Order: sequence, then C-alpha cells, then structure tokens
Amino acid sequence: MKRILITGISGFVGGHFVDYLKSAGKNLEIIGISRHMPSWDFVGFEPDCLKHYEADLNDLPRVKSIIEDTEPDYILHLAAQSSVAESWKTPVDSFMNNTNIFLNVIDTVRRIDNGARVLSVGSSEQYGIVSENDLPLSETRKQSPENPYAVARVSQELLAGIYARGYGLDICCTRSFNHCGPGQRDKFVVSSIAKQFAMIKKGLQEPILHIGNGSIIRDFVDVHDVVSAYCLLLEKGKRGGVYNICSGVGRSILDIINILSEMYGTDVDVRQESSQIRPIDNPRIVGDFRKIHDETGWKPKVSFEDSLRSVYEYWDKRISA
Amino acid sequence: MKRILITGISGFVGGHFVDYLKSAGKNLEIIGISRHMPSWDFVGFEPDCLKHYEADLNDLPRVKSIIEDTEPDYILHLAAQSSVAESWKTPVDSFMNNTNIFLNVIDTVRRIDNGARVLSVGSSEQYGIVSENDLPLSETRKQSPENPYAVARVSQELLAGIYARGYGLDICCTRSFNHCGPGQRDKFVVSSIAKQFAMIKKGLQEPILHIGNGSIIRDFVDVHDVVSAYCLLLEKGKRGGVYNICSGVGRSILDIINILSEMYGTDVDVRQESSQIRPIDNPRIVGDFRKIHDETGWKPKVSFEDSLRSVYEYWDKRISA
Repeated sequence: MKRILITGISGFVGGHFVDYLKSAGKNLEIIGISRHMPSWDFVGFEPDCLKHYEADLNDLPRVKSIIEDTEPDYILHLAAQSSVAESWKTPVDSFMNNTNIFLNVIDTVRRIDNGARVLSVGSSEQYGIVSENDLPLSETRKQSPENPYAVARVSQELLAGIYARGYGLDICCTRSFNHCGPGQRDKFVVSSIAKQFAMIKKGLQEPILHIGNGSIIRDFVDVHDVVSAYCLLLEKGKRGGVYNICSGVGRSILDIINILSEMYGTDVDVRQESSQIRPIDNPRIVGDFRKIHDETGWKPKVSFEDSLRSVYEYWDKRISA
Repeated sequence: MKRILITGISGFVGGHFVDYLKSAGKNLEIIGISRHMPSWDFVGFEPDCLKHYEADLNDLPRVKSIIEDTEPDYILHLAAQSSVAESWKTPVDSFMNNTNIFLNVIDTVRRIDNGARVLSVGSSEQYGIVSENDLPLSETRKQSPENPYAVARVSQELLAGIYARGYGLDICCTRSFNHCGPGQRDKFVVSSIAKQFAMIKKGLQEPILHIGNGSIIRDFVDVHDVVSAYCLLLEKGKRGGVYNICSGVGRSILDIINILSEMYGTDVDVRQESSQIRPIDNPRIVGDFRKIHDETGWKPKVSFEDSLRSVYEYWDKRISA
C-alpha cells in the first residue's frame, strides 16, 4: 500500500483531507506529523490507518528520522502558521513555521532521495497588492508579498522551485486562496463572523459584530474543494508546477455578514476594530483557477452559501446557550 | 560619537570596511559581531575603536542582548554564507546563515525601536537566468533566483521590504555583484585563480588551472569600491531602496585567466572540473549602477587589472616557495 505523509495533520485542512481520502476510497497508509495529536471532531477517525508522530518540524533531526523511517510515496505539506494577522505580531515565528519547516522537509527528501512526490501549500497572499487589471489573478502574475506571512510563502515557493529544478525533486506548489469550512479556528475571518452570529443568536453576545477592515475583498474556497484539489495535484500536478486554488469569485467581509444576517434573520451592527487593521493590506484578491482546471479537471463545487451555512452550524453545535 | 554595528566583521568585506572608515576619517565607534575574532592581516587594527562580540546570529537571545547593550545608530549587515557552490551542497545552512540571521537582526531592531539605519547586503545572484535584452541589469528587472543562495538573498530582501514598509524600519538594500580583492577566500573564483597563478609561478603547482565553467560571465567590482558604496548608502540611501553595486562590465572566467597569464608571463592549461559545475547556472550577469550613481555619486574607481594584481600580490606574499 502506498504511503502518504501529512504534515500539520492536526489542523483544519488536515482533518478534512483525511476525511476526503476515506470518503473517496483512496487506499493509502496515512502517516501524520503535528505538534499535538489531532482532535478533529468533525471527521471520523480510524486509528489503524493513521500513524501519528508528535513533532516540531523545526527539529531537523526529528524530521529526518520520521521521513527515513516511513519512506512516504507522497508528502502533503500542510503544516504552517497561516495567519496574516499573527505574522505581523510575530514575524520570526511566522517565517520559521512556514519557510524553515518546509525547507527541513524537502531537504530531508533530497537526502533520502526516494522519489517522493511533495505538494507544497502556498497562499494567494503571495500576490500582494494587485490592481484591478490583474484580476482575476493567474499564476503568471508577479508576486509582491506585502506581509510577513506572504514573504514566508514566497520564500517557500522559491525554495520548492530550486529543489525541483536544481535537485530534481518531484514537488508541485499551490497558491491557495482563503479557506472556508467547519473546524477552522475563529482567528480566521469567516469562522470568526459565523461564530459571532451563533453567539448573538443564542444571546451570548450583543448584536455587534467585531471585525477588521470590512471592505477588503477575498476569494473564499470551501475546504472540501481545497482537499479534493490537493488530492488531484498529488496525482496529476506537474513537477515544478504552481497552481491557484480558488473560487474565482470575490466577496467582501461585509458581503459575508449580509449573507449570514439574511440567512439567519439576525440584524447586527458592525464595528471595525482598528486593532485588527493591518499595517499593509490587499484591498482585493480574486483568483483564476483555469490552470488547475485545464490540467486536472478540478473546479470548486460547494456554493459560498452552503459553505457559510456549514461554518455557522459548526459553531452553533459547539456553543452552549 | 555615533556607533556602527558590523555583523560578519571578521570576513573579507568587514576588514576592508573597517579599513575604509579609518582611511576616510569617519569618526564612528565600531562594534563588530562574528563567529570568530577577526584575523585580517591586510588592514591596520585599532582595538580601542572596535568592540567585538563572538556570536552566532542564529542565536536570537544573544543578538537581542548585543543590540540592546550597544544601541547602534548604523548596522551594516555583512554576515552571510555567500558561496553559491556551497549553497548547493548545504542549502539549509545557506538559508539559515543568510535569511534567518538577517531576520534575527532586523526583528531585534524592530523591538528595540531606536531608529537604527540598517544596510542589508544582497547579491546579483538574485536576478537569476537573464536574457541578453535584460543587460545591463537594472534594479527593476524581475528576480528569478536559480540557486539556494540566491533564494536566501531574495527572501532577505523581501523581509527587508516588509520591515521597511510595514514596520517603518530604516533599511536599505544592496544587490552586490561579484567581489574581487585581497583577502577573499580561495573558494571564490578570482581569488582561486590568482592563488593558482601564484602557486604555479613559484613551482608549487603544475601549470594547470582548475576551474568550474570558464565561459560564465560575471560583473566583478573591487572590494574597495564596494565598501565606499556601503558607506555612502548608510549615509544617503533611501529607506526601502534597493541598489546595484557593480562595475557595469562583464568578464568571463577565461578573461581573468588571460589577463593574469599575460600580466605575469605565465602560460597555463585550463581544466574545467565537472565537480565544480553547478546544477543550474547563470551564463551572463552584468549590472547597471546608474541608480546608486544618481543618488549618491558613487562609481567604481579601481580598474579590473589593478584589482586582479592586488589579489595576485596578496597570494604571492602568503605562499612560501
């Protein structure tokens, strides 16, 4: 049986990816690495198909020993510190826990030289401040990272390119746009807003929504669509290729609030907190998914409304009135 | 008296920079950091104007404590692992000892917030494979790093940009082209060739020159010109600015051999060693120094022939027949 190593398996996307492999009948032995044991409560979990290592990927000898012991055929590198807001507060941590951990993984693959296929997950933040003429963003558009997280991701992709072209590693890369789905932590905007709606609905919060900059526009893609894209790219992505994973549609933060407000009949006041406004921010990011569609057939399937509903319901279940 | 902190002071450029400050009558208190004590034998050394710390810049608490204790007005960040060849052998070390050490320095400056002006030294390797139409390279040309060292330098410059624009740090950056001058280690090409000529002249080596790819073309700038550029940029460079430091002239490795062969009347056979040929390499790099010239008045003053002569003489003195 082929083996897949998933770094950062305990996270939001890791849980959904494991769930996807099971539901899609993918017959793979799953090896997971994360700092802590997974505690997903939104996916079934079969311990016999999942071997788990608690490890910090900054610990290179540990990374080496795990990859040497398990010799994976595929590596899905999900481990990341993926919050832009946090990266402004702790830029060094963001860099270490994005770029450096990735370098430790791929340099180990280079040394072991077993031909493992690696999927490196990147971010739409890599594009930076874009003009309307650049939208929707295709992969050929210049990268101009404008926050510490984005710099870390650009650096990661540059390293991936060098390892693919210079050392012949079988790596391909994503630029994943904003995710949306049940289980995401509430430091991410959709999850934060849906949670606040659930709190307000239960009378646990005044009908005031606290957000950062409400006018920024992002391209949100449902996590179920994200994980199916990752699976397809592991199977069919081109060596050294870079692929947008996005919905192709831009939504402002205020759009999200309006949809949820209408969906659940909840009127709210919106308060933009200056503490949540970032030193530099991208006013508008929308992606183009033609490349991955043309090469693998992938396209997003989950509607934005269904996605928001699933996030709301996730919080609704977890918050006790 | 104003204070300048020089990281990597024990290196080739560090020695020349200290020498330059003295000869130019710059009245600065010099604080040096390096892994080992400087052992320059080509510059005078006045211990009373130089406080030295032995430290590894990967050790963040140590970096913090030194910068907090010394509160420099200027920081010249020379510390680097600047060999492309070594970066292919030990890419992780290259990344740590370029990008990560720089991040430790600037994040400390951000926390201390004393307004220090930082000069971040980068490399022409950041441009990568270029077409003839792009030559001479100006700072606006796209960066396409093609070796691990170059990726580390691009990442460093991206971080510098974020710290300048996002946190308001007073950083400016160089893209320094190949250096040439006495005291450079013989793992760098000009120094290696000049040393071999000196060895051959003394009968200590067969008249066979061992090199990598002889046809690659680089823009060599004398280290005396490099350090005067660094001093001018510390004084006059624009916050967030990026400046080429180069001669504007391309020379092939075989050109260097021909000049030295003629200068010292030494005939040699040339042997290109495949072990020294790199997985990916740039056939031709030549820079444009108009930007730094326009903004600071700098231009290179030392002729290539004088520069080669000084390197030959450096080795000639050090090699005993």
